[in-house]
Amino acid sequence: MATAGAGDDPGFGTTKETTRLEAFSDGVFAISITLLALEVRVPDSGGPLRRALLEMWPTYVAYLLSFLTILVLWLNHHALLLWVHRMRGKVLVANGMLLMLIALVPFAATLVGRYLGTADARYAVATYAGLFLAINLAFLWVWRLVVTVRHRIAPNLPSAEARSIDRWLVGGILGYAVAVGAALLHAWAGLAVAIAMVAFWLWNAYRRHHVAEHEGEGGGSAGRAVKGEA
Amino acid sequence: MATAGAGDDPGFGTTKETTRLEAFSDGVFAISITLLALEVRVPDSGGPLRRALLEMWPTYVAYLLSFLTILVLWLNHHALLLWVHRMRGKVLVANGMLLMLIALVPFAATLVGRYLGTADARYAVATYAGLFLAINLAFLWVWRLVVTVRHRIAPNLPSAEARSIDRWLVGGILGYAVAVGAALLHAWAGLAVAIAMVAFWLWNAYRRHHVAEHEGEGGGSAGRAVKGEA
Amino acid sequence: MATAGAGDDPGFGTTKETTRLEAFSDGVFAISITLLALEVRVPDSGGPLRRALLEMWPTYVAYLLSFLTILVLWLNHHALLLWVHRMRGKVLVANGMLLMLIALVPFAATLVGRYLGTADARYAVATYAGLFLAINLAFLWVWRLVVTVRHRIAPNLPSAEARSIDRWLVGGILGYAVAVGAALLHAWAGLAVAIAMVAFWLWNAYRRHHVAEHEGEGGGSAGRAVKGEA
Amino acid sequence: MATAGAGDDPGFGTTKETTRLEAFSDGVFAISITLLALEVRVPDSGGPLRRALLEMWPTYVAYLLSFLTILVLWLNHHALLLWVHRMRGKVLVANGMLLMLIALVPFAATLVGRYLGTADARYAVATYAGLFLAINLAFLWVWRLVVTVRHRIAPNLPSAEARSIDRWLVGGILGYAVAVGAALLHAWAGLAVAIAMVAFWLWNAYRRHHVAEHEGEGGGSAGRAVKGEA
Repeated sequence: MATAGAGDDPGFGTTKETTRLEAFSDGVFAISITLLALEVRVPDSGGPLRRALLEMWPTYVAYLLSFLTILVLWLNHHALLLWVHRMRGKVLVANGMLLMLIALVPFAATLVGRYLGTADARYAVATYAGLFLAINLAFLWVWRLVVTVRHRIAPNLPSAEARSIDRWLVGGILGYAVAVGAALLHAWAGLAVAIAMVAFWLWNAYRRHHVAEHEGEGGGSAGRAVKGEA
Repeated sequence: MATAGAGDDPGFGTTKETTRLEAFSDGVFAISITLLALEVRVPDSGGPLRRALLEMWPTYVAYLLSFLTILVLWLNHHALLLWVHRMRGKVLVANGMLLMLIALVPFAATLVGRYLGTADARYAVATYAGLFLAINLAFLWVWRLVVTVRHRIAPNLPSAEARSIDRWLVGGILGYAVAVGAALLHAWAGLAVAIAMVAFWLWNAYRRHHVAEHEGEGGGSAGRAVKGEA
Repeated sequence: MATAGAGDDPGFGTTKETTRLEAFSDGVFAISITLLALEVRVPDSGGPLRRALLEMWPTYVAYLLSFLTILVLWLNHHALLLWVHRMRGKVLVANGMLLMLIALVPFAATLVGRYLGTADARYAVATYAGLFLAINLAFLWVWRLVVTVRHRIAPNLPSAEARSIDRWLVGGILGYAVAVGAALLHAWAGLAVAIAMVAFWLWNAYRRHHVAEHEGEGGGSAGRAVKGEA
Repeated sequence: MATAGAGDDPGFGTTKETTRLEAFSDGVFAISITLLALEVRVPDSGGPLRRALLEMWPTYVAYLLSFLTILVLWLNHHALLLWVHRMRGKVLVANGMLLMLIALVPFAATLVGRYLGTADARYAVATYAGLFLAINLAFLWVWRLVVTVRHRIAPNLPSAEARSIDRWLVGGILGYAVAVGAALLHAWAGLAVAIAMVAFWLWNAYRRHHVAEHEGEGGGSAGRAVKGEA
């Protein structure tokens, strides 16, 4: 792999390209996930602090749900890029679009935290679910670009792993489409769908990468090594 | 170590996984610790600047204490992951929960900076200490997941180091439980417990990793090399 | 390459220097691009949420355009540094100036988002285009410093790649000069120029690094391998 | 170097420790430097945009000066850690204190931007210069801890480089002490001292790391290779 070819190859070339893409993506993920907390703040209501802390519960719901959803997205972005050794302009651009949508999650989370419990809650949750629908579509775009040239840029990607990411993305797209529709009927219905999906994904992520007990150190195929995959 | 096994292994595999987990965690730590400073700001009081700078002392206390506490958490997170060479889904998820709580520290610090010296100070400090109680519980969860499979993912972790982190975490949980109780009686009592713990930890961190004088370059075991460990 | 020379060389020397410059630059790029989203927020208008979300369309335009422009800048910064193996004080300082201007993009984007559709729109867009004119001039400065000593710090940089970056930068400078002038005549004229440039660059980036079909794995020159370059 | 010793050594040990310290420090530097730009914003004055953009010139002065000063600090932090291969608890803690002060720079810059041209300008600039005085003292502390055990953790650090950093730090401490005093007499006098120092440092940084013309690729000592050092 990564055998530097002709004299005008940038030396430690493609490895370095992937590294910096990951660093940049990690930066956007880490900043977006941390900026979510900026919206958790006590309103200057003038009332006693204890009650103010209790009454801002929609903010906690929005924070918890958004943080865990970005965490799942990061875990899967991480899993995807783990197999990619070389880079393409197409993938860089598509990944940029994905990050552009992820950076908007604090905005959507603020909407939910501010409007949950009000008459506008339906539109707030529908916007929130719609953003994650767009994020999953962008993720599928990145993923399809990688898979199309996988024999060139991700030659070691096991088919089982590829199918697993496929399933996760298609499930996300369908789930958030349902969530948008449900939210327009009733805010909490849309939120329940979004919460159920994140809970399911976290449970799956928690069980993943569990190396089989009978395996030796560093041995075995990554494909076989992964247990508990959906 | 890290000997890439079968053909469908992601090449520089598990090392890369740990690297990116650290980069993401470092991002959240660095952003949370820097966002603390956003709360240090002069109120638009209209009075002279010199007095305004002096009267905002609770903000300085909250900044100093919170920054140093996150610093200690980062130092220990750093020490823990230093020994982990391979990754598990469980650890990634638990670490995400830990980061979710750490990202809330600026919120809790703002509460202390705004309410210290008011009638609501007790609830502000209790919330602050309660958040760090939850953070230490989450850290223990991450740590227990690592220790359970340490022969697979952290085979070189010395028992002395493991026991040291155990002691630190259990001490933190007990200490912050006491701090919550003390804060509900009197704000400054709770704050004093939190300050004492951070001072103790910093002092310990300052003395740690002190390579013994008689040791040769790069030689000796890390276990023996560390002096001044509690 | 990177053969550590005499005894007082910092070991893994110059490689490490480039790595940290990239990490720092990536940090500023990632934070600036993510902070753009902080300006996407619903005004406390009191009206219904659905209308408020529609009426803030200038904010969406500013966000989309600014995010994609910073993305293009990052892609090119990435492409430039990929070839640089050693570092110079000059390059570090000039790169710092570049980052100083990039960190101001959220400010300029806020101007556009707030004043588009008002009488002050012309000055807002002219400021926005003027900032990107300055950014392209700073980028050209960094680039010229690298090219001047390319046989020392970027010996593998192919001439085709060097000319491509030259063309991109000179095009950017001319384009944004036109955009400033157009904006002073009519806000949307200036904006149209800026949008056209980003669309053109993204299209080019999307096609770049496209390894030729007939090429073997890791073989071929990077120069020949790149198709679709302007 | 970095030859992993006994069985309970964390493998790629100390190298990794330095890497993560740098990543964390870079994060705090990059976030602080980017957050400076958050303070560059048009006040809701209601007047025409063109005049508002001109009248906020103190904000530009504060941004320019603060960004360039943090840039110089980062360049020197970078130069210092380039030579450090192993880590100490002492250095980690002292570095944390340094970062705690650097994260406050946006606060001090806001003071200057808001109060320059008002009756309170003297205290604003004195606070600003005082913060950089404290930063240089903390930097000297980190540096002294490194130098004390340099034969263990930075064996390749050339004496010329060590003396150069010494001079820079002592100069910074004296300079900012003068700046605090000057600021209390007249705001612009203090600011002039701060501007002069940053201009001098940037000029020096610009000339540094300039490899001698007669040198071969990768050859020569870093000590001899650096020209233009003060």
